[in-house]
Amino acid sequence: MSLPVQRLAIIGIGLIGSSIARVAREKGLARAIVCSDASAEARADALALGIVDAAEADPAVAVAGADLVILCTPIGTYRALAMAIAPALAPGAILSDVGSVKQAAIAAVAPHVPPGVHFIPGHPVAGTEHSGPKSGFASLFDGRWCILTPLEGTDQAALARLEAFWQGAGSNLATMTPLHHDRVLAITSHLPHLIAYTIVGTAADLEEHLQAEVIQYSAGGFRDFTRIAGSDPVMWRDVFLTNREAVLEMLGRLHEDIALMQRAIRIGDGKTLEDLFTRTRAIRRGVLAAKQA
Amino acid sequence: MSLPVQRLAIIGIGLIGSSIARVAREKGLARAIVCSDASAEARADALALGIVDAAEADPAVAVAGADLVILCTPIGTYRALAMAIAPALAPGAILSDVGSVKQAAIAAVAPHVPPGVHFIPGHPVAGTEHSGPKSGFASLFDGRWCILTPLEGTDQAALARLEAFWQGAGSNLATMTPLHHDRVLAITSHLPHLIAYTIVGTAADLEEHLQAEVIQYSAGGFRDFTRIAGSDPVMWRDVFLTNREAVLEMLGRLHEDIALMQRAIRIGDGKTLEDLFTRTRAIRRGVLAAKQA
Repeated sequence: MSLPVQRLAIIGIGLIGSSIARVAREKGLARAIVCSDASAEARADALALGIVDAAEADPAVAVAGADLVILCTPIGTYRALAMAIAPALAPGAILSDVGSVKQAAIAAVAPHVPPGVHFIPGHPVAGTEHSGPKSGFASLFDGRWCILTPLEGTDQAALARLEAFWQGAGSNLATMTPLHHDRVLAITSHLPHLIAYTIVGTAADLEEHLQAEVIQYSAGGFRDFTRIAGSDPVMWRDVFLTNREAVLEMLGRLHEDIALMQRAIRIGDGKTLEDLFTRTRAIRRGVLAAKQA
Repeated sequence: MSLPVQRLAIIGIGLIGSSIARVAREKGLARAIVCSDASAEARADALALGIVDAAEADPAVAVAGADLVILCTPIGTYRALAMAIAPALAPGAILSDVGSVKQAAIAAVAPHVPPGVHFIPGHPVAGTEHSGPKSGFASLFDGRWCILTPLEGTDQAALARLEAFWQGAGSNLATMTPLHHDRVLAITSHLPHLIAYTIVGTAADLEEHLQAEVIQYSAGGFRDFTRIAGSDPVMWRDVFLTNREAVLEMLGRLHEDIALMQRAIRIGDGKTLEDLFTRTRAIRRGVLAAKQA
């Protein structure tokens, strides 16, 4: 176990950023915690909650002197942020992030990282549909996986320090290539969100008199989709724009499978339906056994 | 408020049937509770749980002398069940059900209902992904909607007695036509289940080395789909086979909307994505405001 972080800078103090601040404070993972956020309200909330020692409007001010900097903003902001903070990053600092798409995160950030700064992309696979600093909680990462996608030639001591930080937050650690990460997350996270957003949108476009009933009778399954489809719009817009290829490929597979179901229903093929529904039940058992539910 | 039921017969003592037995016992909604089930294990479990006074293999024995009979089995069993119990139904008894598709339930049962028996189809919009008598709980219907779809000429006193029973179980009551019910539930329940089953199936068909990771990283959204896709295979097979038209129509609309999303991702149209994701967030707020989450 490495020494705790001296000065942790969290860029973007929303659900994920504020949860990192909370767990870092609770577990003594950082001696000082500073954040930056473009929203004055979010900065005020973070200070009022007592989860940061300082809240800056300028990310370059926040990162000055920090030995661990974590980007917790939508991926679309990464390029401009990286350019803004690059001159202020301390030599030897670790720069990481929590973005849901790793190839795009690397493309946006890596070109601007000064020599001597260790850029190690990361993704804690955890979250809720809520947004903002008030929605975070310290146990968000507990028992969840944090995936790191280190670039070639990454300093092993820096990697070990970042891993120790996330282990301190309760995470299980995994490392993989950015390409592999983006493919796995396309099916486990991005496609489910895309479909949930779409199906809730389909319901929203129903004849007006049906709409109230869609909400009233949502306990039949729909409500779970509305929960997922209540997630942050800008963050998810950026996920789909930046993980385009993998999402479109998985969507293509899903399309084929929907067509098979459609046909089974149309021709009254109960065996095909029951066989699939029995197989998927086994996968549910796998999720429960892996303690990810 | 009417008098409680003298003798309640529950045909099929699974998640829903056993939850009805539990709440009836807990709230004193019936003086005696008898069930029937094709599974000897389910019958033994129901007796051991103390939620029924008797458990019969023969549904005709269970309904003898009952003033309220509720079918709680998959819709595919309704026709044979109705024929089996018809001769044993007591004059003046109410025959109801909990099936998720009402037109098909009526087509299967109504022709066999003897004169003097009040057939009133029903659907409590509540459930979990678990099955069997051990999975039920008395508060399942609390604050949830129970939809009744009475046929023309239904005895109003019988309807009032059935409504009082469900109100006693904690449900909000609604009545509508069977056609309207099947359309509303196609979008709020059947389509979400179909898509969840399909997407989990798509993941199950991935290259083998990806499968373990799909489960490992399911906290990113996929796990919510596995929960829905862990629901009872036979019950859901019957739902899709019997509500074919409405499900295929809603699936057609969803298809169009998925195509729009696919195109937005492909051409990098962030505005279309963000607009949809913002609209769906408002619907989530509606579900929360309606206390159905």
